[in-house]
Amino acid sequence: MNTGPARIEINEVGPRDGLQIEKAMVSTDDKVAFVDALSDCGFARIEVTSFTSPKAIPALADAVDVMRRIRRRPGVVYTALVPNIRGLERALEAGTDEMNLVMSCSETHNRANLRMTRDQSYAELSQVLAAAARAGAPCNVSLSTAFGCPFDGDVPAAQVLDLAARLADAGASGITLCDTTGMAFPTQVADLCAQTAARLPGTALTVHLHNTRGMALANAVAAWQTGITRFDAAAGGLGGCPYAPGASGNVNTEELAHMFACMGVESGVSLEPLLAIVRGLPALVQRDLSNALLQAGPRLALHAPPAWLAERFPSAAA
Amino acid sequence: MNTGPARIEINEVGPRDGLQIEKAMVSTDDKVAFVDALSDCGFARIEVTSFTSPKAIPALADAVDVMRRIRRRPGVVYTALVPNIRGLERALEAGTDEMNLVMSCSETHNRANLRMTRDQSYAELSQVLAAAARAGAPCNVSLSTAFGCPFDGDVPAAQVLDLAARLADAGASGITLCDTTGMAFPTQVADLCAQTAARLPGTALTVHLHNTRGMALANAVAAWQTGITRFDAAAGGLGGCPYAPGASGNVNTEELAHMFACMGVESGVSLEPLLAIVRGLPALVQRDLSNALLQAGPRLALHAPPAWLAERFPSAAA
Repeated sequence: MNTGPARIEINEVGPRDGLQIEKAMVSTDDKVAFVDALSDCGFARIEVTSFTSPKAIPALADAVDVMRRIRRRPGVVYTALVPNIRGLERALEAGTDEMNLVMSCSETHNRANLRMTRDQSYAELSQVLAAAARAGAPCNVSLSTAFGCPFDGDVPAAQVLDLAARLADAGASGITLCDTTGMAFPTQVADLCAQTAARLPGTALTVHLHNTRGMALANAVAAWQTGITRFDAAAGGLGGCPYAPGASGNVNTEELAHMFACMGVESGVSLEPLLAIVRGLPALVQRDLSNALLQAGPRLALHAPPAWLAERFPSAAA
Repeated sequence: MNTGPARIEINEVGPRDGLQIEKAMVSTDDKVAFVDALSDCGFARIEVTSFTSPKAIPALADAVDVMRRIRRRPGVVYTALVPNIRGLERALEAGTDEMNLVMSCSETHNRANLRMTRDQSYAELSQVLAAAARAGAPCNVSLSTAFGCPFDGDVPAAQVLDLAARLADAGASGITLCDTTGMAFPTQVADLCAQTAARLPGTALTVHLHNTRGMALANAVAAWQTGITRFDAAAGGLGGCPYAPGASGNVNTEELAHMFACMGVESGVSLEPLLAIVRGLPALVQRDLSNALLQAGPRLALHAPPAWLAERFPSAAA
């Protein structure tokens, strides 16, 4: 198989993309402690919170407090979701390093998720991009439903590419291709990543994968094989989608980091402190989190042979 | 990304590899009904049972009855695990189409799992291969721990290749590279598959993956990219490993078939009847089976938009 880059970067989105959909209310102290613990794991970026209206997402109403109180580890970029000019102002006041804007590639998902048409969203994001540029703040735009829409079905690649190009023209320094409800499959991921990179050679590309149908890691490898180096992921696979009830959430950070480590691809992420955080997540969000890696341990976490073995084979050398 | 063959074959191993480790005792009638239902899903092969000693695996003590009573669908190859000459005789009497022999690539796992040294196993399997050849019965050999051993750790590729070559010389018509406890990772899978295919060009190669650390589908794509066309899988992800407690089992057949179908790769497997079978498995084995695909449905199983959408956007065309 063709291999990809020797080094990747992981953007941990659990504190924002994960917690925003959790039913359990997490205290500000616990959010700060979660981010601070993540800061010691070696992530390139951590998406800390969302500066949306507290009415829209009550779970993250403490965005300013969280962003102000976290410990800033040098080298880590602390990002936040920003929906509009008011959100940008709050994010800048709170000291956010980089903004993450969001809109959908498909019309129905944009209306359902953001309560605007795509034209309205594009106009709003263009204003935010211009204002952020004046403030010197870098902005990434996350494109939801880039690999399929739970309402509209297949999303033509040309539709994604055109929207990405218009947003790059409007000032986005990065674009994230989001598989919002886990509809992506490996050859599609490879095709869209390659086409986007060819169309926008100066734009930092990220892929955001969900494990809704079990393909998250396969899709990550496909993206990596085309040269993608930036991956969103959520500790414990936090998150999900309100339009796919019961579906699993974001790709597990720990399984993503573990897989790339097995392949000798450096992500900078230390697995042991990350697994310690993940073990604490059920207490934080008050629900079970299924996790193959956590149950089994890393691939070279070996087991002792059965005790009867030495007795059964006393003279044979192992 | 480089793509693989346009057509693959799936070998459903749930009735044998799955049921042999389940605690619930499944009746002979239910086993026959399980296999008969699988026969209508489009599998190339179904591993029906195991002709091991009833003392060793009481759950499959009814092997002869099951193999005799299943409905034989033309075009499906009905296989069974055969550990020794006595098992071969019973398998032949019961009308088994193809034998599946097994030994480990690593010494400690062979001793723990088969209670023999590898030399003893090789000698026994050579006798079975010779006897099967006299009877005109094709034999595949499944090589456990080909990608790592839960006791011995990394298994050198040369060790796997040499054992595979010796077994092909002894008469094996096929070799299965088994990731017994889910230690395989994509670049390793691609490397070992490519090396084995180069070393044994006349031998049918199969990969047998477990999802212990979430990488099963990523590993399947990696194998496919090197030209592998034969995959073991278990409906519902049945199975597991007694040496990795709590670990998830075989790669889900439904997720494997769904992923390849998304990529336009024909497996012959019809997803709807398979999903109907999987929905009935918890009643059969008396435990929950986690399954991302079953919860979410196939990627184009779309959702209705929220009811408020038409009211909110009355004049805008979707």
